[in-house]
Amino acid sequence: MAEKPNFSGWSCPLPLRDYERIVIGHGGGGRLSAELVEHLFLPAFGVDPSEELRDSAVIDLAAQGLADSGGRLAFSTDSYVVRPLFFPGGSIGDLAVNGTVNDVAMSGAQPIALSTGFILEEGLKMETLARVATEMGIAAKLADVRLATGDTKVVDAGQADGLYINTAGVGLIPEGVDIRPGRATPGDVVIVSGPIGMHGVAVMSKRESLEFGTEIRSDSAPLNSLVADMLAVTSDIHVLRDPTRGGVTSSLCEIASTADVGIAYEESLVPVPAEVAAACAFLGLDAMSVANEGKLVAVVPAEQVDAVLVAMQDNTYGREACVIGKVVEAHRGMVVAKTTFGATRVVDLQLGEQLPRIC
Amino acid sequence: MAEKPNFSGWSCPLPLRDYERIVIGHGGGGRLSAELVEHLFLPAFGVDPSEELRDSAVIDLAAQGLADSGGRLAFSTDSYVVRPLFFPGGSIGDLAVNGTVNDVAMSGAQPIALSTGFILEEGLKMETLARVATEMGIAAKLADVRLATGDTKVVDAGQADGLYINTAGVGLIPEGVDIRPGRATPGDVVIVSGPIGMHGVAVMSKRESLEFGTEIRSDSAPLNSLVADMLAVTSDIHVLRDPTRGGVTSSLCEIASTADVGIAYEESLVPVPAEVAAACAFLGLDAMSVANEGKLVAVVPAEQVDAVLVAMQDNTYGREACVIGKVVEAHRGMVVAKTTFGATRVVDLQLGEQLPRIC
Repeated sequence: MAEKPNFSGWSCPLPLRDYERIVIGHGGGGRLSAELVEHLFLPAFGVDPSEELRDSAVIDLAAQGLADSGGRLAFSTDSYVVRPLFFPGGSIGDLAVNGTVNDVAMSGAQPIALSTGFILEEGLKMETLARVATEMGIAAKLADVRLATGDTKVVDAGQADGLYINTAGVGLIPEGVDIRPGRATPGDVVIVSGPIGMHGVAVMSKRESLEFGTEIRSDSAPLNSLVADMLAVTSDIHVLRDPTRGGVTSSLCEIASTADVGIAYEESLVPVPAEVAAACAFLGLDAMSVANEGKLVAVVPAEQVDAVLVAMQDNTYGREACVIGKVVEAHRGMVVAKTTFGATRVVDLQLGEQLPRIC
Repeated sequence: MAEKPNFSGWSCPLPLRDYERIVIGHGGGGRLSAELVEHLFLPAFGVDPSEELRDSAVIDLAAQGLADSGGRLAFSTDSYVVRPLFFPGGSIGDLAVNGTVNDVAMSGAQPIALSTGFILEEGLKMETLARVATEMGIAAKLADVRLATGDTKVVDAGQADGLYINTAGVGLIPEGVDIRPGRATPGDVVIVSGPIGMHGVAVMSKRESLEFGTEIRSDSAPLNSLVADMLAVTSDIHVLRDPTRGGVTSSLCEIASTADVGIAYEESLVPVPAEVAAACAFLGLDAMSVANEGKLVAVVPAEQVDAVLVAMQDNTYGREACVIGKVVEAHRGMVVAKTTFGATRVVDLQLGEQLPRIC
């Protein structure tokens, strides 16, 4: 047995912004989340903080002596604590499948199998659970992934808000594919796969019983077929990101920081549905920072952009794919937006989260 | 998009014992848990209920076109909701690592990577989280497994009992190894790897502030090295089970039912520490049904027993391994115990759980 450490005098290795307790923002996918990973989890787990962090880990089977060459697995997990459990366009069930399918797909991998871990509140209606589980089954079929193994725990009434779901996913990365934030290179072009902000606004408007004239529906969708179509054009996709918590802003900031490049985008090019724009104006939100569940951000070499865009627009989930900006040499590590008025502004990671518990 | 079903008239495909709501026992690893999986999750997920269920799913890489031959992955998940978070001999942190390492190892696989999903309660002390995470790091090092990817969500104060953890694990199954409950064959011998009941009693006595003279410590431990040592003797191990929720009784009942064989064991051969026996007598529990986290049940061909036992006893985690019974032709699907008074009794799966939330 290894020595158990003594925690009586434990102090945080680096100041976690002097938070002595967890706040909602630590789960928001913004700067507080990043600090928690960097300053608490990685040192505790004994992981080198300089390792590049991605949506999914890569396991090299050849290095494990299993495959003869090049076989690599993508492995990822997410817990889902969204409230309410059902919202326009989706539910915690299809979110739990699509979210993890998409995390795995962001390595360029095709997901093979998902695990499903349920934490149920005593007293949860059986019908509610069945509805969630059935939506998971439908989503898995749509994404062509197997729900392979699972676990169920029950906690006391008053805990767990009805239910929480964790899914983990395993996928195969095709040979020759190397997709990660660190590969963004000046000259590359930044694409989004369609209109943004719909998932976060759909959940929020349902939760707060807000009506915006038109009902805004979550874009929850599996993106593995879209990624496969993109990779059929070229294996040289540099970066893919799933702009969930923290939205497109978080994805761009992480890419700029990890690759040490500048990213410049034009606000006028960002596809924001009119209903989302109206809701964001009303709620005081920035659509670029609102969560999505069926969109991706891609960074591709300039010479591949046209062909990749055509392939994306041929896929159901990429019909409205478009270019929003580029990777530049200037302002390394920073994201800069050109506003619709022609001015420029620096865009930064949010501290916490605009909309808590949207996934 | 697949059609979203209409749930307004939903009714349970088979009566879930007429429970309209989730009860604590649905998470107990007993009959209620099994019914929930069989009658709710599998139909909802579109999985054939006749598929053999195991602690971990097996993914055949050759069938996926990745490996040239025989490469198989084990994939498993568990959520951890134990109360209290810290108990004699362990914590939710090392349990979350050991539990999933052991589930993967029960396929004969060597675990490669774990995912870690945290659900944190707003207001949780940073020091508590750091202590849990550090114990996970130590446990991972001891089990020689990588904590490869993770996720953190934060829920409102009053939810999640401080914290819940989900881990999923991926491992490689050595060629020629085929370990599953269905392989139990009349003539095989049933082994336990050491004294039973320690984890459940340790958690319960801490939770209820009971004192039993001697402090009983959880046996939480990683069993992958023990499994590797057993497989070094023979690849022909038939079944391995991790007797956690529901204890050794649950494992034996599942094996008897899945393989359609009888299992007979002698109560006098079952190693129950005196302190566990005393606590069980006091609490009205059956030690055979109390959870363990560092023990395994093995079913091996009679001709391999002596060699396997020697290998187990040479490993730290199998020093007190011993034979407790055998697989028989008689009473198929049933487990029968020979009592210390020479009588026999039928042993059945519990409905729910003796000790809730012990993992």
